[in-house]
Amino acid sequence: MSDVKHMKWWGWGNEGVGFHWQDKPGFAPFVLQAVGLDLHAATPAEMPSFGKMKVAKSAASPALLSKLATIVGEGHVTTDDMERVVHVYGKSLRDLVRIREGLVQRYVDVVVYPADEAEVQKVVDAAVAADAVLIPFGGGSNIAGSLEPRADEKRVVISLDMGRMREVVDIDEESGLARIQAGAQGPDLEEQLNAKGWTIGHFPDSFTHSTIGGWVATRSSGMQSDKYGDISDIARGMRVVRPGGTLVIRANPSVSNGPSVREMVLGSEGRLGVITEVTAQVHRIPEKRDVYAYFFPNWEAGIAAMQEIAESDAAPTITRISDAPETGFSLATSKERHGFDKFAAGTVLPTLMRSKGWKLDDICLSFIGYEGEASHAQRQKKLVDAIVKKHGGMGVGKGPGVLYDQKKFDTPYLRDFLLDRGAAGDVSETAMPWSKVNQVHDNVSAAAHKAYDELGIKGWIMSHMSHSYHSGACLYFTFAFVFGDDPLGEYDHVKSAIQQAFVDNGSSISHHHGVGVEHAPWLEQDISSEGVKILSGVFQATDPGGNLNPRKILADPGVPTSGPGTTRKAGAASAAPVAKKATRASTAKKKVTAG
Amino acid sequence: MSDVKHMKWWGWGNEGVGFHWQDKPGFAPFVLQAVGLDLHAATPAEMPSFGKMKVAKSAASPALLSKLATIVGEGHVTTDDMERVVHVYGKSLRDLVRIREGLVQRYVDVVVYPADEAEVQKVVDAAVAADAVLIPFGGGSNIAGSLEPRADEKRVVISLDMGRMREVVDIDEESGLARIQAGAQGPDLEEQLNAKGWTIGHFPDSFTHSTIGGWVATRSSGMQSDKYGDISDIARGMRVVRPGGTLVIRANPSVSNGPSVREMVLGSEGRLGVITEVTAQVHRIPEKRDVYAYFFPNWEAGIAAMQEIAESDAAPTITRISDAPETGFSLATSKERHGFDKFAAGTVLPTLMRSKGWKLDDICLSFIGYEGEASHAQRQKKLVDAIVKKHGGMGVGKGPGVLYDQKKFDTPYLRDFLLDRGAAGDVSETAMPWSKVNQVHDNVSAAAHKAYDELGIKGWIMSHMSHSYHSGACLYFTFAFVFGDDPLGEYDHVKSAIQQAFVDNGSSISHHHGVGVEHAPWLEQDISSEGVKILSGVFQATDPGGNLNPRKILADPGVPTSGPGTTRKAGAASAAPVAKKATRASTAKKKVTAG
Repeated sequence: MSDVKHMKWWGWGNEGVGFHWQDKPGFAPFVLQAVGLDLHAATPAEMPSFGKMKVAKSAASPALLSKLATIVGEGHVTTDDMERVVHVYGKSLRDLVRIREGLVQRYVDVVVYPADEAEVQKVVDAAVAADAVLIPFGGGSNIAGSLEPRADEKRVVISLDMGRMREVVDIDEESGLARIQAGAQGPDLEEQLNAKGWTIGHFPDSFTHSTIGGWVATRSSGMQSDKYGDISDIARGMRVVRPGGTLVIRANPSVSNGPSVREMVLGSEGRLGVITEVTAQVHRIPEKRDVYAYFFPNWEAGIAAMQEIAESDAAPTITRISDAPETGFSLATSKERHGFDKFAAGTVLPTLMRSKGWKLDDICLSFIGYEGEASHAQRQKKLVDAIVKKHGGMGVGKGPGVLYDQKKFDTPYLRDFLLDRGAAGDVSETAMPWSKVNQVHDNVSAAAHKAYDELGIKGWIMSHMSHSYHSGACLYFTFAFVFGDDPLGEYDHVKSAIQQAFVDNGSSISHHHGVGVEHAPWLEQDISSEGVKILSGVFQATDPGGNLNPRKILADPGVPTSGPGTTRKAGAASAAPVAKKATRASTAKKKVTAG
Repeated sequence: MSDVKHMKWWGWGNEGVGFHWQDKPGFAPFVLQAVGLDLHAATPAEMPSFGKMKVAKSAASPALLSKLATIVGEGHVTTDDMERVVHVYGKSLRDLVRIREGLVQRYVDVVVYPADEAEVQKVVDAAVAADAVLIPFGGGSNIAGSLEPRADEKRVVISLDMGRMREVVDIDEESGLARIQAGAQGPDLEEQLNAKGWTIGHFPDSFTHSTIGGWVATRSSGMQSDKYGDISDIARGMRVVRPGGTLVIRANPSVSNGPSVREMVLGSEGRLGVITEVTAQVHRIPEKRDVYAYFFPNWEAGIAAMQEIAESDAAPTITRISDAPETGFSLATSKERHGFDKFAAGTVLPTLMRSKGWKLDDICLSFIGYEGEASHAQRQKKLVDAIVKKHGGMGVGKGPGVLYDQKKFDTPYLRDFLLDRGAAGDVSETAMPWSKVNQVHDNVSAAAHKAYDELGIKGWIMSHMSHSYHSGACLYFTFAFVFGDDPLGEYDHVKSAIQQAFVDNGSSISHHHGVGVEHAPWLEQDISSEGVKILSGVFQATDPGGNLNPRKILADPGVPTSGPGTTRKAGAASAAPVAKKATRASTAKKKVTAG
C-alpha cells in the first residue's frame, strides 16, 4: 500500500506525541481558574478504539474501483476502513469531537493516491465520467470542514490523497522560484529547499502536517508573513487539473490580465480542480534570524506600537502580541526551568514592572522577529525598539523567543489534551483595519463571554495579533470551556457568537483558515449578496455537475441545508437557546471518547 | 453641462501641450538614425479638424434618454457629437490613428455623468432593463481597447463617465486607508490626500489623466510599486455596482475566503460592473524622497544588479534600468542645459567610462529611488550602492533623477508628435521571472526587428526594466517606425510580433495595461485554455445578457470575430505578409491626420 503517513485518526499529530502539563507548574492552577477544570482530579479519557467505529460500506462500484486501479495501480486505491476514516474529516474541534464519538454521516467511499499529474488528470476525468464527487486531500489539517463529504451525498465520494506527490521538482536559483508538488508537507519541502540553501518562509501553525497544495487551496498565512507574504503572495505559478484539461498559470511576478485566474485558485478548496504543482517564491536562508520578546503595560499600548511599526520604515519578519489573558496563559505554560515562571515568584521583572506602575494582570507579551544580514536585522531591531519604548514597552531579550520558536507547532496537541478531559479548546481568526483592532478585540471577547453566560458555564477567550500589514492586522482568538451535556451544540453557540461578532464589527470571517462549511454561513455578511452571486456563478459555470468538492465555501442553490456545518445559522446564534439546538452530538458524554 | 474635463479628442493630454524637440540638440539626429525620419524636413500634420468627422446618429431612443435624464438630471446626459467621439476610444496608438482618420465603426450613443453611487445603480439597472451596453469611462487613458464598443454592436451603447465622482470621501488616519470615489484622477486624489499629509504612492505613466477606478479595472502598476505595491495591493475595499445590487468588499488587509471576489474585480475592465469607490492604502508623505541615477557598463550587468537588489535586504522604492538603446534615447532627449548632453561632447563621464573599458554604445542608465526617514533612505542607498559597485556600475548623483521625476508623465505626448510626422511610437510591457529577463529582452527585440525587416522598413525598439519583485521583473518596451501605406496593418504586424514573443518566451501578455481587445488574442496562450474557460464561465454567469462592456478581455463564444481588435491573430502574425492584411486603415496616408 501507499507509504503516505497520516495523523492520528482520532486527533492531531503523530502517534505517541501529546501535550503534557506535569512539567508546567503554573498550568493546572491556570486551567482551574480559567475554565473550572481540575486537572489533578480529571481522569483522562481512554484512547478511542477504532474497533468500535461502525464504518459504512463503500459505495464505490467494482467497475469504478477497477478503473481507478488501472490509472494509479492496485496498491494505490483503497476502500480500507481506516483509510476511509482518516480521510473523512480534517482536524477541527468539530471533527475531533465527531470522530471520537463515531459520528460520521457520510464516509468517503474510496481513497486514491496518484503518483503524478497525468494520473490525477485521469482520476478527475474518470470521476466526472462516473458522476462521482472528488475531494482533494493534502495533510488533512483543515479546520474549516473543507474535506468532509456532504451528509446527504448520494454519489460515490473519492478522496484524492496527494501524499505521493511531495517533491521539490526544481529550483530556479536565479529567480528564487521553486516548483513544488502539491502534496509536499511543510517539513518535506522545507528539508529539500534547506538542503540547497533555500527556504519558503511559510510557517503556519499546521506546518508540520499541512501541504503546499492545501495552503494554496485555503489562502493560508504563515507566522513570518510580514517578510515573506501570505501564500497568495508566495504562490506564483500553479498547475490545476480540471475535468478535461490542466490549468497552467505561469510563475510571473505580477500581471494585469484580470480577473486573475491565479487568484481564483487561491482559496478555491478543490472547487475549481485539483492543484498538482505550485511554483513558489523561495528565499535564501538568512544569515541572521532572531525572535525577541517584549512586554507592554497593556493591550492598547501594544497594538499602538504594532501599528506604528507597520507604518514605519522598519521591516521585522514577525510582529505578534498577546492580550493580557493570553499572556497569562503563556506564563502558565512555561516550564520551570525557563524564565517565565519567575513571574509567579515575583522576581526581578515583575518588580520592575510594578515600579513602573504596570498592573501585572494587564501586561501583554509580544514577539518580534528579525531576519536578514546581521546588520539589517540589527537595524530593524533598533528601529522597533525605539517604537516599543515610545509606547511604554520593554524588551526582555531572546530567551522567550527561542522557546516560542521551538514550541510554535505544538499548540494543536493541546486541543486533544483538553478533549480527553471533557473540555473544548479551539481557535478563530479574523482580519481588520488598524482602527478596528481594539473594537474587534473587545467585542469578540465580550460576545464569547455572553455566549458562555447564556450556557451557564465558565469559559475562556484570549487572543493575539498574529500578522500585521500596512493597513491592518489579524487577531487570532483561542477559546475554551468545559462541555456540558451537548458538546457540539455548546461549541456551535460559542463559535457562532465569535464569528457573528467578527462580521458585526467589520472584520473578515477568516484570515487564514478558509471558509469550508464552517464559515460559509457568514460569507454573505462579509462579501455582500452580490459577492455570493458572483462566487455561485463561478462554481456553477466551471463545475456544472457539482463533482468538485461541492457545497464548500458556499452552499449551492437547490442543495438541502441539512448536514454537517449547516446546523448553525449566521445571525441567529446568540439568540437561540442551546437546549433547543438539534445537533448530531446530543448523546455525547462529557469526556468525548470513541463511542 | 457637466464640468468633467477630457483629454484632446484626437490625442494625448491637455490642449496646447505637446512634445518639443528644438531645445534637445541630440533628438533630431537620434530620430534620423533610429527610424530614418528627418525632423528638419518633416512638415507636421495640421491639427485634425473635428468638423470633418462624420459622427453617426445616436441610436438611443427618446424614452431611454428621458429615463437617463430622470436619473442623473438633464444636464448630465448627452448625445453631443464631440462627447460621443471623446468617449469612443482610449488613447492607444491604434485609437489615435483611427480617430485622426475618422475611422470609427461604432460610436457610443449616449454619455451619462452620474453624481453618486445611487445614480450609477439606477443607470446600470436602466441599461440592463433596456438591453443596452454599458461601458464605464474613467480618464480615457486606456491603451488596450477596453473602452470601444464592438464594431457590430446592435444595441444602444452607453458610456458611463465617472468624472463627477472624484472626491476623497474619508481618510482613516489610524489605518492608512482612504475611501476614494472611482472617478478621481491621479492629481485630483493626490492633491486631496497631500493636503492632509498623505499619498497613495501610485504613479503610473498615465497618472495625470487616469482614475483610481480605471487603475483597479485594469490592474495598474505605478512607478514606485517596489515600495507601495501594485494597485492590486493598494486597493483593499471596493464598491461595485452590478445589475440589481452593489458588491461591497470590506477594506480588510488580508483574508482567506476564496476565490477572492476582490481580486476578480481587479482587472475586470467593466465586465463585472461599475466600480464606484475604492478604499485604498495611503501612506504619510515621507520625510525624504530621492531618485538617484546610475550607469552600468551593459544590460546584463545592470539586470544582475537589479536582481540582487530585489533579493537583498535593501528596500528601494523605484528600481529602473534602461537598455542601451533606451539609454541612447534618454541622452538624446536631454535639454542642452542638463548634464546628459555632455556625453555627446565627450567630457568627464564618458572619459571615465572609456578608461574603465566600457563601450559607450553598451552603457545602461538606471534610476533608483529611496524614500522614508532620512536615515532609512540613506541606508537603503548605501546597501544598493554596494550592489551596484559589485556589478561594475557607478552612481552619478541626483541630477538626472530630478529630471526624470519632472518629465515622467510627459512621454505619452511623444506619440502624437511622431504621428504628426507620419511615424508610429508605442509601448508594450510584460512580466517574467528574473531568469528569463535577458532572454525576453533579446528575443522581443529580435522579433520586432524581424517584423521591421519583413515590412522592409527601419524600425526601433528599446526597453527598460520598470518594476521589480522578489522573483522577477517587468520589461517595458517602446517601439517606433515610419509608416508606409498601411499604418494599422504595419502596426499590427510589429505589435503582434512583440506580443507573440512575450508568450513564446514565457512572459505575460501584459504587466499593467490590462487586456481589453488589444491583448485578448494572446490570453489563451498565457493562461491556458482552461484559464480561458474559467474566465468565460465567470462572465457568462455574472452577466448573462452581455450588457457589461462585452467582448473585452476575451471574445465571448458565439460573438463574431470581426471588428476592432480582432484582425490580429495570435500566433500567425510573423508569418502573415503585411500586404495581404486587411485593416480598416488601408487608405490611411503616411501622415495620419483627420480625414
